[in-house]
Amino acid sequence: MDLKTYVINKAKEAKYGSEILRKVSSKKKDTVLLKMAESLKKNSEMLIMENQKDIKFAEQKGLSKALIDRLSLNEKRINDMSDGLIEVAALPDPVGEITKMWKRPNGMTVGKMRVPIGVIGIIYEARPNVTVDATALCLKAGNSVVLRGGSEAINSNKAIVEILRSVSKEEGIHEGVITFIDIPEREAVTEMLKLEGIIDLIIPRGGEGLIKTVTENSRIPVLKHYKGVCHVFVDSDADISLAEKICFNAKVQRPATCNAMETMLVHKDIANTFLPDMIKKFKEAGVKIKGCSETRKIDSSIDVLKEEDLYMEYLDLILNIKVVESLEDAISHIAKYGSAHSDAIVTKDYDKAFRFLREVDSSAVFVNASTRLNDGFQFGLGAEIGISTDKIHARGPMGLEELTCTKFIVFGSGQLRE
Amino acid sequence: MDLKTYVINKAKEAKYGSEILRKVSSKKKDTVLLKMAESLKKNSEMLIMENQKDIKFAEQKGLSKALIDRLSLNEKRINDMSDGLIEVAALPDPVGEITKMWKRPNGMTVGKMRVPIGVIGIIYEARPNVTVDATALCLKAGNSVVLRGGSEAINSNKAIVEILRSVSKEEGIHEGVITFIDIPEREAVTEMLKLEGIIDLIIPRGGEGLIKTVTENSRIPVLKHYKGVCHVFVDSDADISLAEKICFNAKVQRPATCNAMETMLVHKDIANTFLPDMIKKFKEAGVKIKGCSETRKIDSSIDVLKEEDLYMEYLDLILNIKVVESLEDAISHIAKYGSAHSDAIVTKDYDKAFRFLREVDSSAVFVNASTRLNDGFQFGLGAEIGISTDKIHARGPMGLEELTCTKFIVFGSGQLRE
Repeated sequence: MDLKTYVINKAKEAKYGSEILRKVSSKKKDTVLLKMAESLKKNSEMLIMENQKDIKFAEQKGLSKALIDRLSLNEKRINDMSDGLIEVAALPDPVGEITKMWKRPNGMTVGKMRVPIGVIGIIYEARPNVTVDATALCLKAGNSVVLRGGSEAINSNKAIVEILRSVSKEEGIHEGVITFIDIPEREAVTEMLKLEGIIDLIIPRGGEGLIKTVTENSRIPVLKHYKGVCHVFVDSDADISLAEKICFNAKVQRPATCNAMETMLVHKDIANTFLPDMIKKFKEAGVKIKGCSETRKIDSSIDVLKEEDLYMEYLDLILNIKVVESLEDAISHIAKYGSAHSDAIVTKDYDKAFRFLREVDSSAVFVNASTRLNDGFQFGLGAEIGISTDKIHARGPMGLEELTCTKFIVFGSGQLRE
Repeated sequence: MDLKTYVINKAKEAKYGSEILRKVSSKKKDTVLLKMAESLKKNSEMLIMENQKDIKFAEQKGLSKALIDRLSLNEKRINDMSDGLIEVAALPDPVGEITKMWKRPNGMTVGKMRVPIGVIGIIYEARPNVTVDATALCLKAGNSVVLRGGSEAINSNKAIVEILRSVSKEEGIHEGVITFIDIPEREAVTEMLKLEGIIDLIIPRGGEGLIKTVTENSRIPVLKHYKGVCHVFVDSDADISLAEKICFNAKVQRPATCNAMETMLVHKDIANTFLPDMIKKFKEAGVKIKGCSETRKIDSSIDVLKEEDLYMEYLDLILNIKVVESLEDAISHIAKYGSAHSDAIVTKDYDKAFRFLREVDSSAVFVNASTRLNDGFQFGLGAEIGISTDKIHARGPMGLEELTCTKFIVFGSGQLRE
């Protein structure tokens, strides 16, 4: 069988699975998720053995320690994946929810009902836990998945998928609800991206290169989880101790995440009182600072901030500090250099808080809180498949609701078009 | 200037316009729409003169009468466009609406706020009224537009755009909110579809060929308004007189629309009582019928229905009639041959009504009402830019809300990520 036929067959299997899954009850879906959780734990020895093959190969290839760590499965990580399934099973089923209902003058009642999207393609890199996490959320929302994991994790992923598929089959909801593209060639992805009409949505999870390739080649709608160049603006009317805590948390608590602060903007009227202590705290925490000329007047040992730095997603203990003239300047700076991900203002001023909320166009805009809170769990969505940086369909943390679409339903009594 | 630079510059002008428009008050937007309505009427003589150029050229090219009719502007049609602007001005502004708001255990309040999408590209064919209608809805929702109309209407479109831009400029909201790609070459569209990051959404309005080209070449999300192969299923428990009225309305009231019925499915137990009168009424209305073997047992003068007919969007007084064994058969038929647009059941049975509503996966599913009611005005959305046949972002009639996206807003008091 050629590569193209192989990929089409996999997608068609998923499509068939999605038609069955669409009609499965909430209770049944939860049972399946819980049995999957059990089965992962039961098979942990086998999973670790398969994972060892990937790790050996990665070591032979000389992959980085960080990558090998992300790839590794152990008892604890398998338990985490299993717990993830249990948590998703406990969430309310979004399918069938009527989000609105209203009556028209002609007597018909119109409503909007949440329904599954259908088949979701997940294209991801080295982390085998994505195989479980993404599948769990998609299944709960009534969607089947076509998985395409990174070649580094191929043995781990195949073992995981085999376990999940067996449970689906045993429970009689068809194994096609989870399909896995087991071909290392890149062309497999290219073929997958052509299957509009079979696959309904593509979610790429990974670095900039992967996302770019997928967006440029896909005929299927893509939901991107792109980079975060996030800002905290410390306004002249900020509570200084609050600003310190928020900025410190936004930068230091977990710098390798997309919602960590990369640039701190400081109003000129507060720079001299706020910056000296703040810089000291950052330095103590090992943060490498790049500062504008005003910042360097306060601490000349700081590196010079260049314009290209302002576009950087460091994902590391590196921070740009820039002093701005006004709220307007801060908003313009964020519009120009930011990535519309997570941005915060610290202020005690009511008008400035609301103006920032309205005018900053990011997936999440915060007043007096850390950008690190832009997260499905923190926002109370129960789970997330990622933080969408797109504007179409879903923006910000994507939970179960965002993995559904709606259809109009009409209860009539003979209404006609006049 | 080369074509590519020209298109990029136009899109950038729109992007700049969108940044201004984003901050414009509802009141101001409505004033602009009302002044546009006035200005179109005031300049009707000039518009008709420009339109005459297009018509002359169309006649020379030997275009069809139907196309030339769609192209034509007269006093009445200009008034209709003007009235459309007034109606859109009267609708509530979706921008700034907080659709949800909730409190988290850590004390922060999280909400979702509707905001403009940004820049919307509209690619359409011969009808100059789309220039006005689409622009009005996009502007009201805070989006600027990059318009690319069909070459047949180029003079009419340029004249309309000039009028709308002048008003925008006079009112101080920047003319870039409406930009028009004035290049006949197809490559202009191809270049436009590459501008992800500048244009946020593409809405193609036109035939299958146009939509296919756009979908295959776009790196920007596309919302399709595709074909409608719509069904009415007359169940064994249908009220026969109600079924007659609904089926007649769905087929005959305006057959050239996407939500008109193309195939009537009839439960075998009711076929003999329902079909004879119904077929007679259709024939009297000039409907050409293609029937399955069971239908032809009732009226042998009817043409033979072939399988390929079942996929057809006739947009004409042609109808397929097929007798089915059961509700399940009807649902399977719709899943296989339908286009997930508008489908209806006529029944008095509660369980069957709900099963049809749940299991038929179309943009609108009706119980005891005509498929022709799948429409933004009929559903009470106030207006529509089309009926989306996509599942992502918007499905079914797209009103102003669907021309916005949401962002998360967070009111904090010092919340940090633990």
